[in-house]
Amino acid sequence: AIRFVTRMWMFLKKAWDLGVDDPRKLIHGLKLGVALMFVSLFYYMRPLYDGVGGSAIWAVMTVVLVFEYTVGGTLYKCLNRIFATFLAGFLALGIHWIASHSGHRFEPYIMGISIFVLASATTFSKFIPVVKARFEYGCTIFILTYSLVSLSGYRVDHLLNVAHERVSTIIIGTCLCIITSMFIYPIWAGSELHHLIPRNMDKIAKSLDCCVAYYFGLDDDESMKSLQSYKCALNSKASEETMANFARWEPPHGNFNFRHPWTNYLKIGMSSRRCAYCIETLSSCLDSKNDQVPEPIKTHLESGCMNLCTSSSNLIRELAIVVSTMTRSRKINMAVEDMKNAVLEIQNDLKSLPDLLIQPHEQKDKNKAVSSDIIVMPLIEVIPLVSFASLLIEIASRIEEDMVK
Amino acid sequence: AIRFVTRMWMFLKKAWDLGVDDPRKLIHGLKLGVALMFVSLFYYMRPLYDGVGGSAIWAVMTVVLVFEYTVGGTLYKCLNRIFATFLAGFLALGIHWIASHSGHRFEPYIMGISIFVLASATTFSKFIPVVKARFEYGCTIFILTYSLVSLSGYRVDHLLNVAHERVSTIIIGTCLCIITSMFIYPIWAGSELHHLIPRNMDKIAKSLDCCVAYYFGLDDDESMKSLQSYKCALNSKASEETMANFARWEPPHGNFNFRHPWTNYLKIGMSSRRCAYCIETLSSCLDSKNDQVPEPIKTHLESGCMNLCTSSSNLIRELAIVVSTMTRSRKINMAVEDMKNAVLEIQNDLKSLPDLLIQPHEQKDKNKAVSSDIIVMPLIEVIPLVSFASLLIEIASRIEEDMVK
Repeated sequence: AIRFVTRMWMFLKKAWDLGVDDPRKLIHGLKLGVALMFVSLFYYMRPLYDGVGGSAIWAVMTVVLVFEYTVGGTLYKCLNRIFATFLAGFLALGIHWIASHSGHRFEPYIMGISIFVLASATTFSKFIPVVKARFEYGCTIFILTYSLVSLSGYRVDHLLNVAHERVSTIIIGTCLCIITSMFIYPIWAGSELHHLIPRNMDKIAKSLDCCVAYYFGLDDDESMKSLQSYKCALNSKASEETMANFARWEPPHGNFNFRHPWTNYLKIGMSSRRCAYCIETLSSCLDSKNDQVPEPIKTHLESGCMNLCTSSSNLIRELAIVVSTMTRSRKINMAVEDMKNAVLEIQNDLKSLPDLLIQPHEQKDKNKAVSSDIIVMPLIEVIPLVSFASLLIEIASRIEEDMVK
Repeated sequence: AIRFVTRMWMFLKKAWDLGVDDPRKLIHGLKLGVALMFVSLFYYMRPLYDGVGGSAIWAVMTVVLVFEYTVGGTLYKCLNRIFATFLAGFLALGIHWIASHSGHRFEPYIMGISIFVLASATTFSKFIPVVKARFEYGCTIFILTYSLVSLSGYRVDHLLNVAHERVSTIIIGTCLCIITSMFIYPIWAGSELHHLIPRNMDKIAKSLDCCVAYYFGLDDDESMKSLQSYKCALNSKASEETMANFARWEPPHGNFNFRHPWTNYLKIGMSSRRCAYCIETLSSCLDSKNDQVPEPIKTHLESGCMNLCTSSSNLIRELAIVVSTMTRSRKINMAVEDMKNAVLEIQNDLKSLPDLLIQPHEQKDKNKAVSSDIIVMPLIEVIPLVSFASLLIEIASRIEEDMVK
């Protein structure tokens, strides 16, 4: 019993932390409550109730099923629901009309077969990527409405009424949802995406800094934490795509016009994910090989590495600012130049590296094995940075292409 | 008009390809059709209809909303739906009883406030990771049922009837869904996951082979395609997690008992994703730097690289076999030994590399810059392989730990 209580307590504490951490999630819960209260009014107020009839449950259902965290998600579900309901309703009426004119005996067969064929085809079409991204919910609602309307048609015999009630209550529900999600503390999928991408880029820059600082023993305790922060950029693809999908349904808001190039965010996200892959490879160098590098070589390369790291993380931060302000700044070109210079510097350092190693070789033959052993190690540290730098340059050119707008 | 027709044609062709490519998706569509047909029988057959009443629409709705591609997904939704409906039904009855005993005046307020509080709290709790993974659908259904039952309670005055009808029709619907998805061409999330992980590992091994072959100019045309095949392992995290979640709901089937360690698959997936990150870094070396490496050094390292690549891709393939057959094989140890030897070999090759480079240096001073330039390049190629090999060793040890079962 005590164990249960502690687990409950842990659960509640976790929930509380979540609420404190991101109060918008709490607000989202309250918004759903508000929308549901409004819809309940149709029940409590007699005049409205008599107008819409007992099928006001459809409005309640719509609110519960359609209300999403972001405005884009809500609009996506609302529009899908409305269009799918209309389409399925008309189709069901049409086929019912055909069926009823072909004799009472064939009617159930025609209806049954049409349900089977349409349901199978629509379910299958959900697997097509385009349909899945934009109309998945609509497909479900299409099947649902079609089967409900055509089945009630066979039984209840006041088909038009059913269709009309369902459509009107759904419209009431969706309107309520749209109003609540758009005008009470709206959470736009577009601006979420717009903030997520620069945040991830900043995290990558921070990780890069920490990574190199840790390698040269300049770290403190908290930097170990921020070393891991690139990891959230690694697996962000799915959420970025969902948000870009939702953002497409949103009306112009804030700084975003209609036809804002949301796909560019996906491209930038992809580029920064490629950086994160490099950092993942880089960070695996940190664990084991740190001790084996002799001090003189380390100090020889330290300034070059630190420079390159600082200049490239600066470039990422500048690009993050460009993305978040949507204005091109001149600093970008300067930062790119800085980084190119740092790359040249480190390449020169690498070229002068053999001199350091060959010295002992000429004095004694025994030292050769040691020195050649040494030569392998420091390069492990440098080469990811070089490839990283080239990736950054690629990103810079890509983003400059994408930023045409 | 012609453009529309061509687009429609393209769309249909894509759908057809999808169906030919994976007929199970087509079968899934047909299964939903069958389940829906069965549920329609409740409408067409009078005796059944009179038993369950007009609320047979709930059964139809349940089938449409609950039927998922995998058995695990269907079970997850079914169980969530049943438990959430029960819980919400009882809670609504309880609070209705309290409300009706506290006077007619307070009743709507108590009901309204309870709906608001419960809906907000449940929606918020959906953001808690554990709840989101296992009970997200249940939360939605809980809110829906609670509001429907308590609203009908206020209005229709035959509350128990509503609750009873809803529960019984939902049970009919869920039973139908479970039977259809489990006994007609079942698609188990567990075995999907069980096949996905080794398939990804094989793809990674293939990419690795192609990558190195391409670097040394041993590639043919088709290898360029399979070079990219590691990419599907990069972003598979979300789908792996969904499948592992669904697999947890599934009863024992095939070779999988209850409490099959599904989380181990996630660990293996994570390890192979780390390999894929390395290959992503490796493949960026292919594009530009290939031409700059002088031939003698390339041939010096070729056999070592090829050996390491072959032995590590063999190890990955062996591990994939271990995962898919769930039996430990002795070949693993041999493959690990092979790979370790290949690592030693390549390290020796690297150690003897300076000899090749120092020779020209001692003859002429001018050549030094060239030779030190040379020294940078071949290492770029080798070091990712070395770090890759160390990652592979890590994976090998990890999987051996995980494979305790």
